[in-house]
Amino acid sequence: MTKNISEQIAAFAAQTAWADIPADVRHEAKRSLLNYFATAIAGSNEIGMKKSLSVLAPFAATGACKIIGRAEQVDMAFAAYLNGVSANIYDFDDTHQETVIHPTAPIAPAVFAHAEVRPCDGKALLKAFIIGGEIECRIGNAVSPSHYARGWHITATCGVFGASAAIAGMLDLSEEQHVWALGNAAAYTSGLVENLGTMSKSISVGNAARNGILSALLAQAGFSGPTDPLGGVRGFLNVYSDLPSLNRMTDGLGEVWEIAKNTYKPYPGGIVMHPMIEGCLRLYNEAGLRAEDVVEVELTGHPLLRERTDRPDVTTGRLSQISAQHTIAIALRRGKAGLTEFNDDAVGETLRDGIRPKVRFIDDDSRDIANVHMRVLTRQGPAHEIEITAAKGGPDNPMTDRELEDKLAELAEFRGFKRDVQAIADAVWALDTAEDASAVMRLTNLPS
Amino acid sequence: MTKNISEQIAAFAAQTAWADIPADVRHEAKRSLLNYFATAIAGSNEIGMKKSLSVLAPFAATGACKIIGRAEQVDMAFAAYLNGVSANIYDFDDTHQETVIHPTAPIAPAVFAHAEVRPCDGKALLKAFIIGGEIECRIGNAVSPSHYARGWHITATCGVFGASAAIAGMLDLSEEQHVWALGNAAAYTSGLVENLGTMSKSISVGNAARNGILSALLAQAGFSGPTDPLGGVRGFLNVYSDLPSLNRMTDGLGEVWEIAKNTYKPYPGGIVMHPMIEGCLRLYNEAGLRAEDVVEVELTGHPLLRERTDRPDVTTGRLSQISAQHTIAIALRRGKAGLTEFNDDAVGETLRDGIRPKVRFIDDDSRDIANVHMRVLTRQGPAHEIEITAAKGGPDNPMTDRELEDKLAELAEFRGFKRDVQAIADAVWALDTAEDASAVMRLTNLPS
Repeated sequence: MTKNISEQIAAFAAQTAWADIPADVRHEAKRSLLNYFATAIAGSNEIGMKKSLSVLAPFAATGACKIIGRAEQVDMAFAAYLNGVSANIYDFDDTHQETVIHPTAPIAPAVFAHAEVRPCDGKALLKAFIIGGEIECRIGNAVSPSHYARGWHITATCGVFGASAAIAGMLDLSEEQHVWALGNAAAYTSGLVENLGTMSKSISVGNAARNGILSALLAQAGFSGPTDPLGGVRGFLNVYSDLPSLNRMTDGLGEVWEIAKNTYKPYPGGIVMHPMIEGCLRLYNEAGLRAEDVVEVELTGHPLLRERTDRPDVTTGRLSQISAQHTIAIALRRGKAGLTEFNDDAVGETLRDGIRPKVRFIDDDSRDIANVHMRVLTRQGPAHEIEITAAKGGPDNPMTDRELEDKLAELAEFRGFKRDVQAIADAVWALDTAEDASAVMRLTNLPS
Repeated sequence: MTKNISEQIAAFAAQTAWADIPADVRHEAKRSLLNYFATAIAGSNEIGMKKSLSVLAPFAATGACKIIGRAEQVDMAFAAYLNGVSANIYDFDDTHQETVIHPTAPIAPAVFAHAEVRPCDGKALLKAFIIGGEIECRIGNAVSPSHYARGWHITATCGVFGASAAIAGMLDLSEEQHVWALGNAAAYTSGLVENLGTMSKSISVGNAARNGILSALLAQAGFSGPTDPLGGVRGFLNVYSDLPSLNRMTDGLGEVWEIAKNTYKPYPGGIVMHPMIEGCLRLYNEAGLRAEDVVEVELTGHPLLRERTDRPDVTTGRLSQISAQHTIAIALRRGKAGLTEFNDDAVGETLRDGIRPKVRFIDDDSRDIANVHMRVLTRQGPAHEIEITAAKGGPDNPMTDRELEDKLAELAEFRGFKRDVQAIADAVWALDTAEDASAVMRLTNLPS
C-alpha cells in the first residue's frame, strides 16, 4: 500500500541514520546552533522575555533545565518555550530564505531541554535537530508562498512540526507514533503575522518548541491522531495553504537538504535592509561618510525594500529594525549596526539630532533582496555611489564560521554575559563527538 | 476616532455590567453550565483524558484547582485544560447551531479555575462566562461558514478568544489590555477538523481554556500585541476565513445575544442523527419495534445525514457515534441511546449479532437537520413510518431544565460518580446569588 504524506515523513524521521546525513549538512547544523546560542543570549533579558518568565512560571513544574543567559532553572517544556522566545525575540536568528522560516528557534530549545532530562550523545541531538529542521522547512515549502502571504507566522506554524519530529526521533518512536506526533502538532500549530513587531509574537514561537515536546510525549503514550495530519483533506497542508505543493514534502527527501540552506544575519532587523546596511558601513569606513553630511539617499532595490522599510518617523526600537531612514542614519553616525543601534536610545538619537535622511526609493523588479544600489547626496556637494551585489549573510555570501563566533561574542557583550563564549563555540563545533549533548547548556546559563 | 473591531469588542467586554444582561440570557448561561458539569463528569475517566493528565502533569505546577469527576488537584491553567478536555471528549456538550461551536468547554473551565484561585461571586463568574461566550460565538459567526468547512475546529479556534475575554473581564483589565488579551489569544489559536474523531482533538479544546487564561494574564502584565488582532489585514478574521463577515462581530452587540441560542444534546453523537434516534426510541416504545425484526430502514433527511453517518462497518465506540447503522440497531435493541450505547462493547454487540439494518438514505434538501422521515421494513411484513419534525434538543424543542438535571444524573451514573448531583444542579441554579462562585467545584470532584 502506498504511504500517505505523513507516513512518508514519519518513515524518513524514523529511518534516517546519522550515517545518512552528509558532512556539510552536519556542519551547517552546528553553525545554526552556534547562531542560536548567540541570539538566545542576546534576547535573554529582553522585556518580553522577562514578562514571559514571570507570568508563565506559576504554571510550570520545577525542573533542572537551563535558560540560556539566565540563572533560573525550570521544567523541560517551559525551558523550551523560554529559549525559543529569547532566540527569536530580536529577529536576529537564522533564515531559510525560500520560506522566511527561522528554523532553529522552535527546534534547538526542544532538543537541548530534552537532552538535559534524558541524556543522549551529541550525534543523537544533531540528528534530531537536522531531521526536525528538514521536516519544518519542507512543510514550509509545501505551504508557500500563500501561507505567509495570507498571514501565518511560518516560523511558529511549521516549527511545531519540526520540534515534534525531532523529539519523536529522540524518543525512538515507531512510525505510527511519529504520525501521531505530527497529528498532535497539527492540533497545536498557531501563529499570526499580525502579531509580528509586538510582544505577542513570542507566544507562538515559544509554543512551537514547547508543544513539539508535548506532541511527541503524548504520541509516545499512545495519544493517537488522524492517519494523515499533513496531507489529509482537512489536514495542515490543505487548510493552511491556498495552494499547497504536496510534492515538495517528499521530492528529493533525504537527498536535497533544505536545512543546509540555512543563513545567518550579520545585522539585526529585516533582511531586506542588509545590503543597504553593508553599503552604509562601507561608505563610513572607505569614504569617511558621516550621517550629518547626508542630504538625501536614493535606494534602487527590490520593491520589498520600499514596502517594508519606508518608515521615516519611527519612535521605538522594535520598529526601528524595519526603518530605512533610522538605519541609514545610525549606521552612518556610529559606523556599526548591532542591537544597540536599534534600541529606544538609538531611535531617540537619530530623531532628536535630525540626522535621518530623506530617502528616495526606486523599485527595480530585476533585483533580488540581496542587492541594492545606493546614491548618497551630501551637504558638501559630491554624491557617493555604491553597488552591493550579494550582501553578507545571504546564500551567495554566507557568514564564515569565524564571523559566527564573532557574532556570539558581540551578542554576549550586548547582554553583559560574562562567561567564556569561546568555550560555547568550541563545544558546538565538537558536538558530534560529545558524549553528553547537553553539556554545552552548562556553559550558557548564569549561576543560580 | 472610530474604534476598530478589536477595540469595539474590548469596549463591550470591559463596559458591560451585570444589569445589562437580560434574565433569559443569564438563565441560559446556567443551563450551559449545568450541561457542562454533566459532560465533564462523564468524560472524566475517558482514556484520552487519563493520558492527557498523566503525560502533561509533569509540566504543570502544583495547585489547588479541582478536576471535575476526579480527585487530583492541579494549577489553574492545567485544571482549565483538563476540564475542557473532559467536557468535550464525548462530543456530548452544547452547540451554538449556526457555527457548530461547543461554546462552554473552552470557557467554563477557565472561569471556574480562575475563581478557585481568585475568589469572586457568582454574578461575576456568570457575567464573564456570558461575555466570553458572546465574543466566541460572534467571532464564529464572522468567520463562518468557510472557517469550519475549510478545516478549522471552530470550538477551539474561537474558544480561546472567548476564554481570554472572560478572564480579562474577571481581572478587570482596561480596554487596551483587553485588546492585548485578544492579540495574545490570536497567537495561541489552533485546532483542525482533521483531528476530530481522534484523541488529538482534545489538545486544541483543552488549550482553548488554558491559553485563554494565559492570554489574559499576559495582557494584565503589559504583554502587548497588535492594535486590531481580530480585524487587521493579517488578523484572525481575515486569515482564518475565506470570506469573513466583519459586521457580524458588532451588529446588535449587547442586544441580540448569541450565547442565549445555545442548545444541548439529549443523546451523544452527531446532532444530525438525533431526529433518527428519537424516531427509533418512539418506535421501540410506542410500536414495540425491536432491532432483530428490522430488515431495512429508509431515511429521508438532510443530505448531511447521509454524508456524515452512512457507516455500516464501524468497529470502535468513537466512530459509532457517527454511524446510522449502529445507532439504529442499538437504539432498537436497548430502547435507549446513552453513552453506553456508543462504547466498544455496544459496537461489538450490533456487529456480532448482525442486527445493523440495511439503510437507504434519501436526500431531501428541503429538510433541515432537526427532522427526518423513517420508514422501517420488518421481517413480519408491515412497515412502520414515523416523521420527526423538531427533534428534542434543537432550537425549536429545547431540553427543559428538568431534562438537563436528568442528563446530569445519567452521566454521573455512567461515570460511576457517587456524589449528590442534585446539589450540583441546585448550586448552578443559584449561582447568581452565590457569594463564592467556585463553591460548586467542591461538589464536583472526588475526595483526594
